[in-house]
Amino acid sequence: MTSKLIAIVAGVGPGTGASIARKFAATYPVVLLARKPESYESLANEINQSGGKAIGVSADVADSASVKNAVEVIKKEFGADVGAAAAIYNASGGFLRKPFLEIPEEVFSTSLDTSAKGGFNFSQATLPLLLKGVEQKSQHPPSLIFTGATASVKSNAQMASFATGKWALRALSQSLAREFGPQGVHVAHAIIDGVIDIPRTKEWLKDLGPEYKLSPDGIANDYWWLHTQPVTNFTWEIDLRPAVEKW
Amino acid sequence: MTSKLIAIVAGVGPGTGASIARKFAATYPVVLLARKPESYESLANEINQSGGKAIGVSADVADSASVKNAVEVIKKEFGADVGAAAAIYNASGGFLRKPFLEIPEEVFSTSLDTSAKGGFNFSQATLPLLLKGVEQKSQHPPSLIFTGATASVKSNAQMASFATGKWALRALSQSLAREFGPQGVHVAHAIIDGVIDIPRTKEWLKDLGPEYKLSPDGIANDYWWLHTQPVTNFTWEIDLRPAVEKW
Amino acid sequence: MTSKLIAIVAGVGPGTGASIARKFAATYPVVLLARKPESYESLANEINQSGGKAIGVSADVADSASVKNAVEVIKKEFGADVGAAAAIYNASGGFLRKPFLEIPEEVFSTSLDTSAKGGFNFSQATLPLLLKGVEQKSQHPPSLIFTGATASVKSNAQMASFATGKWALRALSQSLAREFGPQGVHVAHAIIDGVIDIPRTKEWLKDLGPEYKLSPDGIANDYWWLHTQPVTNFTWEIDLRPAVEKW
Amino acid sequence: MTSKLIAIVAGVGPGTGASIARKFAATYPVVLLARKPESYESLANEINQSGGKAIGVSADVADSASVKNAVEVIKKEFGADVGAAAAIYNASGGFLRKPFLEIPEEVFSTSLDTSAKGGFNFSQATLPLLLKGVEQKSQHPPSLIFTGATASVKSNAQMASFATGKWALRALSQSLAREFGPQGVHVAHAIIDGVIDIPRTKEWLKDLGPEYKLSPDGIANDYWWLHTQPVTNFTWEIDLRPAVEKW
Repeated sequence: MTSKLIAIVAGVGPGTGASIARKFAATYPVVLLARKPESYESLANEINQSGGKAIGVSADVADSASVKNAVEVIKKEFGADVGAAAAIYNASGGFLRKPFLEIPEEVFSTSLDTSAKGGFNFSQATLPLLLKGVEQKSQHPPSLIFTGATASVKSNAQMASFATGKWALRALSQSLAREFGPQGVHVAHAIIDGVIDIPRTKEWLKDLGPEYKLSPDGIANDYWWLHTQPVTNFTWEIDLRPAVEKW
Repeated sequence: MTSKLIAIVAGVGPGTGASIARKFAATYPVVLLARKPESYESLANEINQSGGKAIGVSADVADSASVKNAVEVIKKEFGADVGAAAAIYNASGGFLRKPFLEIPEEVFSTSLDTSAKGGFNFSQATLPLLLKGVEQKSQHPPSLIFTGATASVKSNAQMASFATGKWALRALSQSLAREFGPQGVHVAHAIIDGVIDIPRTKEWLKDLGPEYKLSPDGIANDYWWLHTQPVTNFTWEIDLRPAVEKW
Repeated sequence: MTSKLIAIVAGVGPGTGASIARKFAATYPVVLLARKPESYESLANEINQSGGKAIGVSADVADSASVKNAVEVIKKEFGADVGAAAAIYNASGGFLRKPFLEIPEEVFSTSLDTSAKGGFNFSQATLPLLLKGVEQKSQHPPSLIFTGATASVKSNAQMASFATGKWALRALSQSLAREFGPQGVHVAHAIIDGVIDIPRTKEWLKDLGPEYKLSPDGIANDYWWLHTQPVTNFTWEIDLRPAVEKW
Repeated sequence: MTSKLIAIVAGVGPGTGASIARKFAATYPVVLLARKPESYESLANEINQSGGKAIGVSADVADSASVKNAVEVIKKEFGADVGAAAAIYNASGGFLRKPFLEIPEEVFSTSLDTSAKGGFNFSQATLPLLLKGVEQKSQHPPSLIFTGATASVKSNAQMASFATGKWALRALSQSLAREFGPQGVHVAHAIIDGVIDIPRTKEWLKDLGPEYKLSPDGIANDYWWLHTQPVTNFTWEIDLRPAVEKW
């Protein structure tokens, strides 16, 4: 692995973010962003010990100062001129299925802030690095990929606190795709329509069989595929779901 | 006008909000919400002098305490048990068409907060009154109507700060429509796709002719039409544009 | 009723088409199109006896010659120069919910032809009359309204034979709205999302209560509302469903 | 190449269809469908001479008898029990940009029939082979992929004759994805949003530069990527456009 360009993954935990980080770490040094060190430490160790390079940085994406600080740490580590080949926004607001009138304002705000403001902060912080990746002639078009959900396109009853942020994030990704595509940056959005097979969902749908859950490694492969599309064939949006999913 | 039910209009200025308020004031006492008294004072006077009833309340919809205070003022005026026949959210985040990397965080946040958090605050404050309107057997199903824009369904380059909030507001309206429709409240969303003919846009498209702008009184009629749909025939969403508009 | 302009309704039976015809007959002479006289005869009588004017014409909308013949009949009755204030396409392809591999080709073709080719034939036949309505300064913008369904925007398993035609019809209406709006004709599309309360569905959802079905008279009111929108405020699409409908 | 499963490509010419056929021919024997032998002969020769296997079959997809005959030819060549790993519908209706009232009925019908009825005929003919591919445990989930266009989701003025068929084809693909996904067949739809760089479009956008056209080999790679998605991670729809495309 000799790339000077890096990949940045926000929202790393023991699930999809880790799969994405491992996939991109096969080609790029990766930066792992999460609120707490316990979310990225073992993954960073794993990648570093298996021949890749990874650093973890504690950051709250909803807080612009925290995101700016993370960029400073990245520049200290990789040089002030570092370019990025990929930036992946996998953070997500919380999820409280409850009658609307019982949703506390803080729950709504926190979810919206993580999805929408977090997406804004992350994009403003990483797009300059992705544009440098364009200048530095990255092999694949530098890519900014957002993780969406069923709730990015359908806003169900009692799901307003989650869906508002997800719709906002999808709007952000569409606007950025239109603005930065002509500048050589590939902005994409993935609608994950189903339960992902990660530690947190271990007990979910257990009786139905493993084919009822999305593979996080499969998602990582799909993001890698998006990343390797040439500049003539950019996909803005894909949906992803298990074959057996009802939709 | 003998209705004990009221109509509440947020985002009242010299434009669409005023047209909506006048239309609903023909049937209901109306409450006019705006940040500053100069936005509602002359309109309230006009309605009161022409045989209707209107009160203005200063409120910042993005601030939940301010919205809650407005409800207290309403209850003082109309009784603690007051029900609402209509609540119309016509407030909107700002609009700064600029390269994404030049958008200040405050601009993004303010626009998002006005559209998304404002919509949340207004809905949490007015839905209890609309549900009382159902109990009190309002003639037409109590209605919660949101004003959207082209940017509610299309997120163009350099428009992220406006579109994120508008997509979020549309998501909010869809979720509420699904949750509160079965409880008898009609939640609707109007995509205003074009320039509205209001004082602020007087100089816009001037050379093209008046048919290039939406009529604010026409919009008010459309909202009234939505309000009068029976419980068997609810429309969640309409689009509205001049016949000559390119889309 | 002194209008020289007429309204034309295709797909008249004992249900929605009849409600629409009655509504528009209060203002315009109406032409009722159906494949068989028994579908329009009693309705024409009813309208004529209650002070309106109606004629029925037998026509198969999927057959362009049959539609052209209907226009000849109309011109014989109302004059070669007759203009139309409204043309409403309420015909619909059939509905066979079955595994895709068991759908006979004829079923697919007939459904597609009724929705898509029928819509094409009807539009080509009536748009010249609607454009004459514009010339003759109709009070409300001449309107071409299409009846859609849930299957116009969602194509469920085993519903391909119905949905293909409905999606095609929606595409037709959108293209026509964009082409003929600037010429003064209002083209609209209504997504009827639920069961309509008509004789054929009398037994459906019976145990749930009347609020579970759309009112056909309500739909007719909604079409009339679309028709009366001014040229500055055209709606292309509305959705309509019972408040209690799950969606 | 030892696969007993085949790939079938409809709509083979000197453009996208040829790229797709070459890509899939690296793994599967391919069947090339086109109306006329000159559309597939040199491609079949090329594939056969470079170590692959290809046969061409003359077929008009809009004619169900012709498609059924093609299946008979396939079974004669590959055995009555042959299974398919992939079936790709790349045929498309014609394109006549003209005022709606000047579109001849035959143009509308032919375009609709090629897209919608052709898609129906092709799907009914190939799905039994794809289901056999499931039984025969194909390495990748057997895939039915449809080529769409900008006009699959947007129906512009003067484009009704093309868009109706494309919307219908998209509806078909969505319904089939929902019905056959749970049976192990991956149904997908690609929105090609831009000009493809093929012989027919050689002169188009010439002055702008090669990055203004989609690469047909790139599209073939994208279809192959769709084909290799595991059963837990199916994408129904992707969009594809040049980075510089306005949308």
